[in-house]
Amino acid sequence: MTAIQLYDTTLRDGMQGEGMSLSAEEKLRVAHRLDALGIHLIEAGFPTSNPKELELFTLLERETFLTADVAAFGMTRRAGTRADEDAALRVLADCFAPVVTIVGKTWGLHVEKVLRVDRDENLRMIAESVAFLVAQGKRVIYDAEHCFDGWRDDAAYARRCVLAAAEAGAETVALCDTNGGSLPGQIAEGTRDLAAALATADVRVGIHCHDDVGCGVANSLAGIEAGATQVQGTMNGYGERCGNANLVTIIPNLQLKLGYECLPHDRLATLTETAHYLDELLNRTPNPDQPYVGKNAFAHGGGMHADGVLKEAASFEHMDPLLVGNHREMLISELSGKGTVLARAEESGVALDEDGARRVVERVKALEHGGYQYEAADGSFELLLRKESGEYESLFQLESWRVIVEQRADGKVETEATIKIWANGERYLRTAEGNGPVHALDNALRAAVEESHPELKGTGLVNFKVRILDETKGTEAVTRVLLDASDGHDVWGSIGVSENVIEASWDALVDSLEYAIQAGRTRVGKRGPARSAT
Amino acid sequence: MTAIQLYDTTLRDGMQGEGMSLSAEEKLRVAHRLDALGIHLIEAGFPTSNPKELELFTLLERETFLTADVAAFGMTRRAGTRADEDAALRVLADCFAPVVTIVGKTWGLHVEKVLRVDRDENLRMIAESVAFLVAQGKRVIYDAEHCFDGWRDDAAYARRCVLAAAEAGAETVALCDTNGGSLPGQIAEGTRDLAAALATADVRVGIHCHDDVGCGVANSLAGIEAGATQVQGTMNGYGERCGNANLVTIIPNLQLKLGYECLPHDRLATLTETAHYLDELLNRTPNPDQPYVGKNAFAHGGGMHADGVLKEAASFEHMDPLLVGNHREMLISELSGKGTVLARAEESGVALDEDGARRVVERVKALEHGGYQYEAADGSFELLLRKESGEYESLFQLESWRVIVEQRADGKVETEATIKIWANGERYLRTAEGNGPVHALDNALRAAVEESHPELKGTGLVNFKVRILDETKGTEAVTRVLLDASDGHDVWGSIGVSENVIEASWDALVDSLEYAIQAGRTRVGKRGPARSAT
Repeated sequence: MTAIQLYDTTLRDGMQGEGMSLSAEEKLRVAHRLDALGIHLIEAGFPTSNPKELELFTLLERETFLTADVAAFGMTRRAGTRADEDAALRVLADCFAPVVTIVGKTWGLHVEKVLRVDRDENLRMIAESVAFLVAQGKRVIYDAEHCFDGWRDDAAYARRCVLAAAEAGAETVALCDTNGGSLPGQIAEGTRDLAAALATADVRVGIHCHDDVGCGVANSLAGIEAGATQVQGTMNGYGERCGNANLVTIIPNLQLKLGYECLPHDRLATLTETAHYLDELLNRTPNPDQPYVGKNAFAHGGGMHADGVLKEAASFEHMDPLLVGNHREMLISELSGKGTVLARAEESGVALDEDGARRVVERVKALEHGGYQYEAADGSFELLLRKESGEYESLFQLESWRVIVEQRADGKVETEATIKIWANGERYLRTAEGNGPVHALDNALRAAVEESHPELKGTGLVNFKVRILDETKGTEAVTRVLLDASDGHDVWGSIGVSENVIEASWDALVDSLEYAIQAGRTRVGKRGPARSAT
Repeated sequence: MTAIQLYDTTLRDGMQGEGMSLSAEEKLRVAHRLDALGIHLIEAGFPTSNPKELELFTLLERETFLTADVAAFGMTRRAGTRADEDAALRVLADCFAPVVTIVGKTWGLHVEKVLRVDRDENLRMIAESVAFLVAQGKRVIYDAEHCFDGWRDDAAYARRCVLAAAEAGAETVALCDTNGGSLPGQIAEGTRDLAAALATADVRVGIHCHDDVGCGVANSLAGIEAGATQVQGTMNGYGERCGNANLVTIIPNLQLKLGYECLPHDRLATLTETAHYLDELLNRTPNPDQPYVGKNAFAHGGGMHADGVLKEAASFEHMDPLLVGNHREMLISELSGKGTVLARAEESGVALDEDGARRVVERVKALEHGGYQYEAADGSFELLLRKESGEYESLFQLESWRVIVEQRADGKVETEATIKIWANGERYLRTAEGNGPVHALDNALRAAVEESHPELKGTGLVNFKVRILDETKGTEAVTRVLLDASDGHDVWGSIGVSENVIEASWDALVDSLEYAIQAGRTRVGKRGPARSAT
C-alpha cells in the first residue's frame, strides 16, 4: 500500500472562494480539526501578507499538532534580484514553519507575458529560491503553477522548470493544474512524463487540481495513479471559481476504492463530522448531495430501492457509510413503511410501538398527500412521533394571531403581529413588529414564551424556504414553508403547509419552537457536528 | 469527429432528487428547453405510474420537437410471465413515444437477492422484453443496471446480459453505474470489455453514471473514450443521493476539450441560460461554482489573477466563457450589456435609443445588486425599457394598501386586503378577501382597475414563486417573488424584491397587471409554449 501525503490548502487557496472569511482564531481551530483528521501538511498562508495572517502564524507557533506540519506559502524571488535579498523569501526563511511552499512559473506564456522575464531567468528564480530556503533549513515544496498548460505547450521547458526545483533541493514538486482546465487523461499523461523527468532526483511528486471542468477529484486520482504521492486540495472543495480539488472526496476514493494509505481508519470515520464542522464555521449550508459525507449521500427514497436495501445493503450502496462517519438515511416519503418509522423513532430515542408506527405512517401519508414533505423537516417529524408515543410537550394553547402589513401613503411599509396564547395557565397577549410577517410573528411568539422557556433565548431561525406546490395554480396554490432553527449546536427543520403563506409560516414556526423544548430531544449532530470544541 | 448522442433523464432520474417536483405542464416546458438546447433523447418517465405522468404523456404527444425524440421508461417483464402479457410492457408499447428505454439486471447479486430468479430467467426477461417492444415498432434502449458492479463480479455474465439485449434488437445498450461507486479507470476497463463483447451486434453503446464518488463527469468521459457514443445524464446533475452525471459539464468537456460532436455551436452558447432556467423552474439556487455555467466559473478574485487576466485572458482561463454563454465578470446576467438591451427593446417593439439603453443597463445593475434578477421576469424588464423610452402607461397611483391575516380563536384563518388608489382621476377604495395575502391583494387591485381596464378580466396569475436570498439570515433575509401571468395566449413574468414577502409580492403583482395594459406589448411565447392547449 503506497502511503499518500495529504496536503490541505483550505486556509490559503480555499479562502479565495467567494464569501470565505475566517478570523485568525477560527483558522487555528480549522488547523486543529485538520490535524485531528490526520492531514499531514497544513498550508496556512503567507506569514505577513496582512495583520490577520501574521496573527495566525503567531498563534500557530505556540501549538502542538499530532500529525500535521505547518507550511508557509510564498513565491519565487522577484526577477533580477538575489534570493537572499528578497524580502518575501526572508520572511519565509524567518517563519517558524518547518515547511515552505513556493509557487513559480512553468508555462512559457506566463513567463513571457505575465512575469515578463526570459525563460532562463525563470529557471534561475526557481532554483535559487528553493536553494536559499533549503540552506535556511526549510523543507521546501515547489508548486509548479500552470504546469499542465505549460507541459502541453512546451514539455521540454516544463521538465526543465520542475527539475530546476528538484535539483535545488526541493522535497516535493507539486504539479498544479492552476486554471483547472485539464481532463484526467491529460493529467495522467503529464504527470507520468514529468515524474519520469524527475526520477533522477530524490523528490516526491505532488498533484494540485481545481474543479473547473468538474474533474477536480478524478484529476487528483489520475495524478496519484500516474506517480504522485502527495495530493493537494481543500476541505469540501472550497476555492475560487469552481473550487479546488475536494479532499473530502479524494481521501475515501484513494483509501477505500484504490487501496492507498491516507488516514488510520478511526480518523477516516471522522470525515463527515470534520467536513460539516468546516461548513458550519464558514456559515455555509453543507451540500446535502456531497459524495460520501452529504446528508443524501446514502439516502434511499424510491420504494423499490428502499425495499432492495433492506434485502441486501451492499446491493444498492457502493460502500459502508460508517467508514466515513456517515449513515444510511431512509427518506420519509409517501412510499416508506413502518420499519423506517420505527428505525427513525429508535434513532430519536422515542418509545414508539408497532401500532404507533402504523398510525404515524398513515398520518404521514395523509400529510404528504396534502403537500407536507418530511425529508427536510426532521424536527416536525420527531414531533409527529412524539405525539403518537405520548412523549410530547406542548408549548402553548393558541387563542388567535393576527398579522397586519401595510404600505402607507408615504410609501413606508409596516408589519405588526399580535398573538394571544395561553401557557402555564396564563394568558399572554403580545404585539411585535418585524421586517416581514414571519419575522413579526416570530418576535411576538418569542416575547410570550421565552418567559416560561428561557432556553428558547439561545435558539433562532437560520434558514427560511418557501415553495409553491403545483405552481400553475397561481396565488391560490398551496405553499410549503420550511424553516431551519438552531441552538448553536444542532439544527432542526420544521414545516408548514397551507394555501396561505402566513399560516404555513406560523405552523412551521410553532413546530420549530416546540421541538426545542421537548425533553430529551436528540439532535446528535446528525446534520452538523456538536460544537463542544468551540 | 465522432458524434455523441445526448440522452437527458432530468424528467425521470433527475426527479428522484430530494425535493424535486414539477407539474406535468412544467415538465413540458423543460422538454422544450432541452429540445431547444439540442438534446437528442428526452426520457420522460413511465407513462402511467401516476396521473401526473399520464397527463405529461398526453401533453407530449401533441408537441413537435426540433431535435429531440421522447423516450418512455420502464423495466423488463416480471419473472415467469410472457412479455406480451406484461401489463407494464403493454403500456410502453401503446405509448406514442417512438423510443422506449427499459432497465434490467446485469449483476448476479441482484438477480438472486433482489429479483430472486435464476440467471437464465433474467437473460430471457431481457431478451423477450426487448424483442417484444421491437416487434411493436419501438426503438429500444436497454439500460443495464449495476452494470459495472456486475461486470467486476462476473464479467462473463454481464457480457451475456448486454448481448441478450443487443441480439434481441435493442438500438442501444447503456452501461449504468447505478450506485455511482465506480472510478474512471474501472468505467474505462468495463466499457472497453463490454463494447468489445457487443461488437458483433449492430448496437450503440451508452454510458449512464452517478456522482457518488465525485466522478460522475469523469466517468462519463471515460465511458465515451472507451467506445460509448451515447451519454446519459441530467441537467445540473439533478438526481438522488449525490446526483446523476451532469450533462451541463459533460457536454462542453466532450465538445470543447475532447473534440466530439454534441451540439451546434450556437446551441452550446445557450447552455448557461438553459441550466439557469431549469434551476429557476425548480426553485433551486443555481450553484455559483458550477463548472462552465456558474456565476463564479470565470470570476477572477485574487489581485494577481485579475491583473493577469487583463494581460492575457488565455493565461488564466481554460476556455472562452462565451462558448457556453457565460461571462468573465462576477455578475452574470443576459441583460448586462447595452447591445443586449437594445436587441431586447427591438424584439419588444420598444423604441429605445443608445442613451436609454445605457440608463437601462445602469438601472439593471443596481437592481440586480439588490437581488432583482430579470432572466425570468420578462414583463418587468419590458416595463423598465418602456419607462426609459417613454412608452409606458401607468395603471394607477397608489395611496396605500393593507393586508390583514388573522387566525381566530375558532381556528379559522381569514385574509383581507384593502387598497386605496387613484386611476383616471378617481379614487378607488376596495377590500377583498383571498386564500392568502397575495391572492387577496390581487383580488382587491383587480376590483379597482378592471372597471377602467376590462381587458384585465381575461388575465390571471398562473405561477407564483418565492425565493429567499441569502437564506442563512433566517426570516430577515431578502425575499424575491416571481409571478407569471397569462392572458390565455402569452405568459409573462414579473418580479418584486423586499425584506418583506408581502411588499415583494405587491410589487410583482403591480408589474404583472401593468404589463398587461401596455399598448402594443409583444409576448411571443419565449418562456414556454402558449397555454391555449390546456
